[in-house]
Amino acid sequence: MQLNLTVEAVWSDVQKIRSAAPLVHNITNYVVMNNTANALLALGASPVMAHAREEVEDMVAIASALVINIGTLSSAWVETMASAMSKASAKGIPIIFDPVGAGATAYRTRTCHELMNAVAPTVIRGNASEIMALVDAAVATKGVDSSTTEKPVKALRELARQFSCAVVVSGETDLVSDGETWFRIRNGHALMPRVTGLGCTASALVGAFAAVQPEPLSAAAHAMAVMGICGEIAAAQAAGPGSLQMYFLDALYQLNEERIATTLKGC
Amino acid sequence: MQLNLTVEAVWSDVQKIRSAAPLVHNITNYVVMNNTANALLALGASPVMAHAREEVEDMVAIASALVINIGTLSSAWVETMASAMSKASAKGIPIIFDPVGAGATAYRTRTCHELMNAVAPTVIRGNASEIMALVDAAVATKGVDSSTTEKPVKALRELARQFSCAVVVSGETDLVSDGETWFRIRNGHALMPRVTGLGCTASALVGAFAAVQPEPLSAAAHAMAVMGICGEIAAAQAAGPGSLQMYFLDALYQLNEERIATTLKGC
Amino acid sequence: MQLNLTVEAVWSDVQKIRSAAPLVHNITNYVVMNNTANALLALGASPVMAHAREEVEDMVAIASALVINIGTLSSAWVETMASAMSKASAKGIPIIFDPVGAGATAYRTRTCHELMNAVAPTVIRGNASEIMALVDAAVATKGVDSSTTEKPVKALRELARQFSCAVVVSGETDLVSDGETWFRIRNGHALMPRVTGLGCTASALVGAFAAVQPEPLSAAAHAMAVMGICGEIAAAQAAGPGSLQMYFLDALYQLNEERIATTLKGC
Repeated sequence: MQLNLTVEAVWSDVQKIRSAAPLVHNITNYVVMNNTANALLALGASPVMAHAREEVEDMVAIASALVINIGTLSSAWVETMASAMSKASAKGIPIIFDPVGAGATAYRTRTCHELMNAVAPTVIRGNASEIMALVDAAVATKGVDSSTTEKPVKALRELARQFSCAVVVSGETDLVSDGETWFRIRNGHALMPRVTGLGCTASALVGAFAAVQPEPLSAAAHAMAVMGICGEIAAAQAAGPGSLQMYFLDALYQLNEERIATTLKGC
Repeated sequence: MQLNLTVEAVWSDVQKIRSAAPLVHNITNYVVMNNTANALLALGASPVMAHAREEVEDMVAIASALVINIGTLSSAWVETMASAMSKASAKGIPIIFDPVGAGATAYRTRTCHELMNAVAPTVIRGNASEIMALVDAAVATKGVDSSTTEKPVKALRELARQFSCAVVVSGETDLVSDGETWFRIRNGHALMPRVTGLGCTASALVGAFAAVQPEPLSAAAHAMAVMGICGEIAAAQAAGPGSLQMYFLDALYQLNEERIATTLKGC
Repeated sequence: MQLNLTVEAVWSDVQKIRSAAPLVHNITNYVVMNNTANALLALGASPVMAHAREEVEDMVAIASALVINIGTLSSAWVETMASAMSKASAKGIPIIFDPVGAGATAYRTRTCHELMNAVAPTVIRGNASEIMALVDAAVATKGVDSSTTEKPVKALRELARQFSCAVVVSGETDLVSDGETWFRIRNGHALMPRVTGLGCTASALVGAFAAVQPEPLSAAAHAMAVMGICGEIAAAQAAGPGSLQMYFLDALYQLNEERIATTLKGC
C-alpha cells in the first residue's frame, strides 16, 4: 500500500488519541517504564503497566492496545507476555512488539521467536541489529551489502512478510514496511539515542497510534514521525540528553498541527 | 474532628520532616520508584525501597512510616506487603495504602481487600474510581447521584469508617475524611495528572507527614496541600508535563512558609 | 601506588570512554536503572541492564565491565548477580560492587559478604555507613575515633586490603584507597545527595572508567572526580534537586578538557 505521510494524516491521528485517550497496556522493561508512561500521558493516551499472571488478561480486556517490550525480560514475565498477546489477539486489539537486545543473547532472540511465532504482532519496532537478528540468519547474511541500509531494508521487508505485520527499523532515518513496500521517516535528531529508552518510547507511542489508526503501516509511520518531530523540537532547546528528555515530553504535550506542518519531512 | 489547614500547621509539619528526616519505607510500583524517592528527598524525608521477604520486616523495624502501593503488583510482592504491614502495625508506625488500579481488575480489588482486612491502614489515598471500587458495591452504587462529587464523598466516608482510618480521594479538588467529617483541599493544577505517578508521590508524601504528624487526617490533608501548592508553583513555570515534574521537585525543595502562605487555599 | 589525579589523566579516560563506548552491564536496583543508564549514555558509554538467569552470563560475555548494585535485592536477583560476577571474573573484566543499604538489614550485609567472598570486586563504592558495615565489626569499632573521617578511612583501607581491590567512600569529600594509601576527591556539591541514586550513578560511571582504565584506583578516582565536577557544574545552574538531575546529565554530555581544568580540585 501507499503511505499517506501528510500533515493532515498525522494530525488526525494525534487528535483521535487526545479525544479517545486509549488505554495502552504495557508489559515493558524496568528502565523505561516511567518514561514511556510519561510519553503516553503527554501525547494524550492513557498508560497502564501490569504484568501479574493473575490480572494480565483482565487488563488486556479493557485496553485498546498492547505493547510488549523484552528489555529486562525474565521467564516469569515472558509467560505473562505470552498470555497477554494471546488475549489481545483473541480480542482483536493491536500488539506492538519491541525486541530489545535481540541478537545480544541467544535467550533474547529465542524468546522473541517464541512469542511472535505463537501470536504475530501488529507492528514490530527495533533498531537495525535487533530486526536483523530476528530474520533467519540465511536471509540476513545473504549476499554482499553495498550500502549501510540495504541489509536492514532486506530484513525489514522479510520480517514484515514473515509475520504479515508492519515493521519499523529505528535509526538516523527510520524505515517502515508492510512487506511489500518500504518508506523512510526522515524526522529525528542525533541526540535522541543518547537518552535511554527513546526507542521503547517509540514502541509505546506506536501502541497509542495503533489504538486509533487501523492501518498498521500508517500507525507506525505516524508514531515515528511524531517521535522525530518532537525530538527535533526538543533538541533545538536542549543542552544535552538530560534536557532533551524533558523538552521531548513538553513537545509531545504541545504538539499541534502547525508544529507538524513546519517540521514534518516527506518520505 | 476539625481540620486545621492553616499555613502554620502545614509549615510546622514540613519543618518537622526536614529536621527529623524520617525514614519512609516504600513497597511501591516500578513506574514511580524513582519519582517518589526523589520527592521524599526533595521534601526532606529519607526514602528506602525494599521488598525482599528476607529483609522487609527488618526494614520496617528502622522506618518511621510504611507506604504500600500496588501499582505493579505480583503475588510475591503482595506477600511481602502483607508482612511489612503486619510488622508496621505491631510496631505502631503509620501505614499509607495506595490502591492503584483498584476496580480495573478483580485481582487488584481483591488484593486491596485482603491486605486491608488483615491490617487496617492509617491513611488510604486513591482517585475517585479506586476509592469507590474499594467500598462494597451495594454502598457505592446506592441511589442516584446528583453531582460528580456526591458518590466519591459517600465512598470516602464509608471507607474511612470501615477501616477507622483517614481516606483521601485525589482529583481536581482533593477530598479527605476521617469517616465523620470531610474536607476539600483546593490546591493543585490540571497539568498534574499528565505526569505519571504524582498520585503515588502524594501517597509517599503522606507517609512522610504521617511520620511526624500523629493525627492521620491532618497528615493526609497537609501532604495533599503541599502536593497542590508545589504543583501550582511548578505549573506556573512549566511548558508541559516534562518540565512540570522537574519544577515540582525543585518546589518541594524550596518550599518555605512564605510560599505556603501565598499559595494555600482554605478548605 | 600514587594517584595521578590530573586534568590530563581524567580527560584521557573520558576520551577513551567516548571512543570505545564500552558496554557496561548493570544488575542494579529498580529505583535508579533509568538514571544510571542515562548517565552512562551521556558520558559516552553503552549501558545494558539484564538479570535473567538464562542470559546473564551471555551478557557478561559481550560486556567490558560489570556493575552489581544490591539496592532492591531479592533472592532470585542475588543468584544471577553471583553468576554474573563469576563469569566476569573468569573473563577478566572489572567488577564494580555497590553495597546499597549494607548495615541497614542483616540480609543486605550478609548478601554483600556472600557475593564478595565468592568473587572479589575490582572496586567497591558506598557511603561511609555502608563501607563500615562491610568491615568486620571488630575492626570498624576498634578504639575511639577522634574525627568523623578517621573511622571511614580505617574501614576503607581495611576493606581494600581484605579484597585486594579499590574502595570508594562517597561523601562530602570522597575517599579512595587501594589498601596501601588513600586519597581525597574534593569535587562535588551538597545538593547531590538530595537526588536519589547519584551514588548508584557513581558506581555505574566507575564501571565505564574501569572498562578503559586498567588501574582500579585511578578508574575509581577519575570517575568520582567526573561525578563531582559535573555535580558542581549542574548545581551552579540548578534551583533544586529536580533541575540538578537534568543539568547533571547535560554536564556529563558536555564535559570537555577545559571544564575539567577549571573545576578539578587536587587530592
